Amino acid sequence: MNKTPVFKVVVLGARGGLHEDNLSAYLVAPVESTSYISLDAGTILAGIRKCLEKGGFDDIKTPESSNLTPDGWILQKHVKAHLISHTHLDHVAGLVLNAPDGSKKNILGIKQTIDHLRDHLFNWKVWPNFSNEGDGFQLKKYRYIRLKPEQEYKINQTAMTVKAFKLSHCGYPSTAFWVGAEDQYLLYFGDTGPDALEKTNSIGKVWDYSAPFIQNKRLRAIFIEVSFPDPRADDQLFGHLTPSWMVHELKRLSSRISTQNTKKPLEGITVIVTHIKSTFDKNIKVIQTIKEQLDELNDLGVKFIIPEQGERFYL
Amino acid sequence: MNKTPVFKVVVLGARGGLHEDNLSAYLVAPVESTSYISLDAGTILAGIRKCLEKGGFDDIKTPESSNLTPDGWILQKHVKAHLISHTHLDHVAGLVLNAPDGSKKNILGIKQTIDHLRDHLFNWKVWPNFSNEGDGFQLKKYRYIRLKPEQEYKINQTAMTVKAFKLSHCGYPSTAFWVGAEDQYLLYFGDTGPDALEKTNSIGKVWDYSAPFIQNKRLRAIFIEVSFPDPRADDQLFGHLTPSWMVHELKRLSSRISTQNTKKPLEGITVIVTHIKSTFDKNIKVIQTIKEQLDELNDLGVKFIIPEQGERFYL
Repeated sequence: MNKTPVFKVVVLGARGGLHEDNLSAYLVAPVESTSYISLDAGTILAGIRKCLEKGGFDDIKTPESSNLTPDGWILQKHVKAHLISHTHLDHVAGLVLNAPDGSKKNILGIKQTIDHLRDHLFNWKVWPNFSNEGDGFQLKKYRYIRLKPEQEYKINQTAMTVKAFKLSHCGYPSTAFWVGAEDQYLLYFGDTGPDALEKTNSIGKVWDYSAPFIQNKRLRAIFIEVSFPDPRADDQLFGHLTPSWMVHELKRLSSRISTQNTKKPLEGITVIVTHIKSTFDKNIKVIQTIKEQLDELNDLGVKFIIPEQGERFYL
Repeated sequence: MNKTPVFKVVVLGARGGLHEDNLSAYLVAPVESTSYISLDAGTILAGIRKCLEKGGFDDIKTPESSNLTPDGWILQKHVKAHLISHTHLDHVAGLVLNAPDGSKKNILGIKQTIDHLRDHLFNWKVWPNFSNEGDGFQLKKYRYIRLKPEQEYKINQTAMTVKAFKLSHCGYPSTAFWVGAEDQYLLYFGDTGPDALEKTNSIGKVWDYSAPFIQNKRLRAIFIEVSFPDPRADDQLFGHLTPSWMVHELKRLSSRISTQNTKKPLEGITVIVTHIKSTFDKNIKVIQTIKEQLDELNDLGVKFIIPEQGERFYL
């Protein structure tokens, strides 16, 4: 695999619960650009501040002539769009709460995602209508873009493209985003249950699409959720994955790739483990447990990363 | 005034914007009790953690026999109910996001508040239905209690009472809570514009009710918002107060109290300044500015406190 990085990622929020200030949101840009998108928007500003504390925004300098604080500068000038996998609050709270102080930008999602934002959040009941559709006066800070599944869109003000694939999250419509820059790609899964339990082929269709790109070494990384450690009863998954279910899905991907060149088709692929749900049980170290379970299951040669809020990495 | 404190307060969240991890939520209990209510619920668990870091929960010890972490113990065992002034997300995000991991408790609010929670948040579109009403399967973690305005209710599992008064927040229904323990009281305002601009007498009715309690030295403190510093055009207030409008409202209260015993009827009353909205303008120190403006305007003898997340004080 070509080791020169194509993408950079800033982790604004990494977890799937019990951390209302650290919920799914990943800034992504091509390495040479400072025009980021966010993949989901659970935590935005608190994550930008955490990354500033850690010294991670070394690609962005607030001009001295600007009145803006560094966090304000980044939110207003360098976050160009939000891609939302679904409207559960842990994926959109940051986008809603920061609307008054952000800049104009687009929100991209499938129809159901946008409709729920319009009807239940930006409706003057839960929050002023900062969008360009729906009830009452429209403050037009955000512009909704409905993505038709499996069609490629340019993301305005960035050098990236996106293609949405529908997922099933306990029957609820969720989304995977296939994000491109030049001819290289990232794959981001929103919350999803395993196909076998959701009784769909949603993830399978994403794997069908992905397989040739892996063969051509054009997929850089997969962001995919593991909400709970093993063992967990199937009827207690609520549309999420465990290490064993996630690796099971990766094996479905692997099996789609011709092995003429290698015995391990996913060797070297980076898999970023999102949406881990913490617990109040003081005897359970969830992150460590999931990491150990994934390492134990990893006969695919993939590289698992459990991201931490405020960190930056290159893919 | 009797100086023996009657109430204790833990500040879980203190601001009105730009801090998605520090939004309006105040734990309150009688001094001898560890059964708290929260007044609003913008930030819950992040605030509990901040207070634990600062050593502020010295009244609560997690038993060694419990499996729970200290933050989990406090959330599950010592937060007995949420009183919600209105459903704007900066006042309820913590209650929604922490629902999966909290314990069963009641949510108290006026009808509109509860209806909006039911219809737009706990509706299986924005979040699973953790309540006991509304769409789909009801997980029944929370039980809704609709408070009729100006009627006193006991708050279950606590030694406190509450009476709700309607407020107008740019025309949106908001609430003031009159919270009692023994024969002493706190007054908490949710977001509100000044009566003169909202064209109501909502705050006036609260003052009518409050005046005799102040005369009898039975009101310990007033929590009231100042969202923006002066000067700010009336048509840019969006249902909020400035220092000058807040002091104007306090003067309306003062004028309702007979002055036979003192020239300053509000002398010694604690006024806790909530919901300050920060700004990205690096040249504006909002908190310091509001503090100075309030001190300048303070010919009432009240004691202004600008609360900080994670701190505890006694009233």
